[in-house]
Amino acid sequence: MSGALAQEFFASRWVQRPAHVTQDDGGLPAGFRAAHASAGIKPAGAVDLGLVVCDAPDAVSAARFTRSGVLAPPVLVTRDETTPNGLRAVIANSGNANAATGDAGLQAARLMQRATAETLGLQPATVAVASTGVIGVPLPTAGLPAAIGAAAAALDRGGDVAFSEAIVTTDAFHKRATLTVELPSGTVRLSAQAKGAGMIEPAFATMLCFVQTDAALAPETAELLLGVCVKRSFDRISVDGQLSTNDTVILMCSGSSGVAVAPESEDELRFGEALDALLRMLAIMIVRDGEGARRIGRVVVRGPAPEVVERCARAVANSPLVKTALHGADPNWGRIAQAVGQALPGAAPLALDIAIEGMPVCVGGVAVAYDLGALNAAAAGVEIEYEVGLPLTAPGPPAETEVLFSDLSHEYVTINAEYTT
Amino acid sequence: MSGALAQEFFASRWVQRPAHVTQDDGGLPAGFRAAHASAGIKPAGAVDLGLVVCDAPDAVSAARFTRSGVLAPPVLVTRDETTPNGLRAVIANSGNANAATGDAGLQAARLMQRATAETLGLQPATVAVASTGVIGVPLPTAGLPAAIGAAAAALDRGGDVAFSEAIVTTDAFHKRATLTVELPSGTVRLSAQAKGAGMIEPAFATMLCFVQTDAALAPETAELLLGVCVKRSFDRISVDGQLSTNDTVILMCSGSSGVAVAPESEDELRFGEALDALLRMLAIMIVRDGEGARRIGRVVVRGPAPEVVERCARAVANSPLVKTALHGADPNWGRIAQAVGQALPGAAPLALDIAIEGMPVCVGGVAVAYDLGALNAAAAGVEIEYEVGLPLTAPGPPAETEVLFSDLSHEYVTINAEYTT
Repeated sequence: MSGALAQEFFASRWVQRPAHVTQDDGGLPAGFRAAHASAGIKPAGAVDLGLVVCDAPDAVSAARFTRSGVLAPPVLVTRDETTPNGLRAVIANSGNANAATGDAGLQAARLMQRATAETLGLQPATVAVASTGVIGVPLPTAGLPAAIGAAAAALDRGGDVAFSEAIVTTDAFHKRATLTVELPSGTVRLSAQAKGAGMIEPAFATMLCFVQTDAALAPETAELLLGVCVKRSFDRISVDGQLSTNDTVILMCSGSSGVAVAPESEDELRFGEALDALLRMLAIMIVRDGEGARRIGRVVVRGPAPEVVERCARAVANSPLVKTALHGADPNWGRIAQAVGQALPGAAPLALDIAIEGMPVCVGGVAVAYDLGALNAAAAGVEIEYEVGLPLTAPGPPAETEVLFSDLSHEYVTINAEYTT
Repeated sequence: MSGALAQEFFASRWVQRPAHVTQDDGGLPAGFRAAHASAGIKPAGAVDLGLVVCDAPDAVSAARFTRSGVLAPPVLVTRDETTPNGLRAVIANSGNANAATGDAGLQAARLMQRATAETLGLQPATVAVASTGVIGVPLPTAGLPAAIGAAAAALDRGGDVAFSEAIVTTDAFHKRATLTVELPSGTVRLSAQAKGAGMIEPAFATMLCFVQTDAALAPETAELLLGVCVKRSFDRISVDGQLSTNDTVILMCSGSSGVAVAPESEDELRFGEALDALLRMLAIMIVRDGEGARRIGRVVVRGPAPEVVERCARAVANSPLVKTALHGADPNWGRIAQAVGQALPGAAPLALDIAIEGMPVCVGGVAVAYDLGALNAAAAGVEIEYEVGLPLTAPGPPAETEVLFSDLSHEYVTINAEYTT
C-alpha cells in the first residue's frame, strides 16, 4: 500500500518526495494517540472535536500562530497560557472559531484546556486549544466535558484518521499523511493532519495543522525546523487572500523511536527535508481544496529585492482577474502585467518578462509572438506555472519568491454567499 | 423629462443632488460636440471609437491618470505628449487597451492622436488618447484613419449618447449625465461620460471618465476641482481591487457659457459641489455595474490615523469573503472582523466596533446581542452600509474614510473566466 499511497500523497510537480522518505499505511508515530467525538457544536451530532495526545512525559513541541490583529481566544490561550515547547495534547473543535467572542470565549477556551488536562491527568499548560469555523458566534460549551471524556476513552494509535475528520469545515477532502523517514541514526515516523479551504492567505496560511513525530528533537531544533518549513509551505499559499483569526500549527515530538535529531547533523538535514516535503504537500493540498478550486497556479517572481518580488507575487496570486482566468483555462497574461503594475506604482515603463508554462509571452514589457494553441493547451492543465521577471537594479543574483494559489470559481461564490462559514 | 431623469441619476442614498443642480435632457454643454464610429477593433463592426471635441480655441482642461507601474501607451502619450491644461479633443477606443504593446503601441496611440489632430485641424498636443479593453494584444490600426474621419463628420451637440456607447466594454449600462448648475454668476452646464465595470480599484478606480462644461475655469481651478472630486469619487471605489493600466479622467471647459468660475468664489464652491455630486454618482454607478453585481456596500472606518482607517477600509472592501456575504445578503460580520484583523497584524486584542445598517453587532471586539431578523432584512437591501470603529490612541476627532464596493457574484466569475477581457 505504501508505494501507491506515496505516489498519491506527493501528487504535485512542485514537491519531490525525498529519496529517504516513504509513505506508510497511516497510524500515528510511536508515543501518540488520537480520537474524535461529537460535542454538539456542529448540527446533527456531526463529529466536531478532535484530541491528539503525546504519551511521552518529556515531549518537545513548537508552535506557530496567525498574526491577525483579531486573535481568537483559543489562539490567545495556546500562545499565552501554555508551555509552547512542552505541549502534551491538542484539543481542537470545528464548526465554531470561538473568535470575536471576548471574555466568554476566553472562558470557553480555558474550559476546553482544563477539561482535557483533568481527563488526561496533565497540567493545563501542556494542553493546546484550537478552533475553526464561523466567527462571532458564542462557542456552545455544554457538550464539551462529556465529549472530551469520550474522546479520551477512544484514544488510539490509529486515531489520526478520526482526528483528521474532526477538524474539517468546508474541506472537500482530508489532508493528512504518515511518513517513514530513514535517518543516518535510525528510522523515525512523521505524521500530520491539516485542514483549510477558505480564509487562507498571506503570511500564514493554514487554518490548522498538527504534526507528530517519534523522533527526539531539542526544543531549539523543533522551533528551527518548524519555523523554516512553515515559511516554505503555509506562508507561501493563498486561496482568497484572507488571513484567519485562528491559524495554528503545532509540531509535537515524542522521542519514542529513540532516534535523536541533533543540531547541525545529517539527521537534522534529512528530517528537515522530510518535514519540508510533508508541509509543502499539505499546503498544496489546501490550495487544491481552495473552496471550489479546479486548477492551482504557482507564480514565481524574480526581481531586484525580496520585498519587491513578494509584493508582486502576492498581487498576482490574489488578483480575482488572474484567478478567474486560471479557472477558465485562459492564458490571459495581460492580467498578470496589470497586477504587477498595480504592485509597483510609478515604476512605468516597466520592462517585465512573463512566461506561462515556460513559454515567454511578454518580454521587456512588450507582447511577443507565441503559439496560442500550445499556450491554450498548457493553460488547461491542473497545475499552471507563471514566471515573472522584473528588471534588476544591481549586479548579482535576483531575489526570488513563489506563491501557490487556487483559482476563483462559481463554487467559491456559492460556498461563501450561500452558507455562513 | 428633467425631473424624472434627475431622480434616476442621483439614485443612491450616498449622494445628494445639490439644490442648485438639476438634470437636463442630455446633450453636451455649449462648445462641445461628440460622435462615434466603427474602427474594426471590436468584432462585427461594433461601435468602438468615440470622439469628443471642444470648439473653443482657449479651452482649459485637467487630467488624472492611473498610477500603475504598467502604463498603457495611450496614457503615456496623453500624459507626456500633450498640453494637459489645453486639451481640445479626446479620441477613445474600446475593445483593446493598447497596453503592454511596447513601441508599436506607442506608434498606434500617436497615430490616433495625429489622425484626429489632422482631421480636426488641431495641434497633436491638444488631442488626448484613451483606450480600454484587453491587455497585451496589438491595437488594429488599419481602420482608424477612416473611422476618425467618419466620427469627425458626425460630430454633434447631442453626440454624448453616441460617445458613451463607444467607450464601454463589459459595462451593463451607460454611465453619463448632463446637469444644469445654477451659479451666482449665471447658469452653466456640466456633462460626463464614464465607463467601467471590472479591473476597478484603489487609488484611482475609474477606467475612463470624460467631463465637459461650458463654464470658464482657469487651469489651476480645473486642476484643483478635478483633483479634489476624483479623490472623493473614483478614488473611493473598488469592484475587484484591480488597478487598471489605462485609467484616465479628463475635464474640459469650453467657457462658452460666458460664466467664469473664479478661485475661492461662491461660484467655485457651487460648481465644485455639482462636479462632486456628478463624479460620486458616476463612481457609484461603476460599482453598481461591477461585473455581475447585485448589491453594493459602503464601509466607513473611523480610527486613530488616516493610514490605519484606509488600510482597514480597503481590506474590508476587497475581501472576497465580505463580498460574497454581501452578494448572499448574509450579515456575516465575523468576516469584517477577520479582514480588519488581517489589516492590523499584531494589534490583538483589538477592541473594534462593527455596525451593519446602524445596528451594532460587535462592540469592543465582542459579539453583542442583536435582532437577527432585522439584521437579515437590512442585509437584503441593494445598498448596505458597514461601520467599523477602531480604538483611538489620542484625544480629538477620529480619522475617517469610506470605500464603496460591489459584491462578488457567480456572474463575475463567468464574465472573467469565460471571456478574455
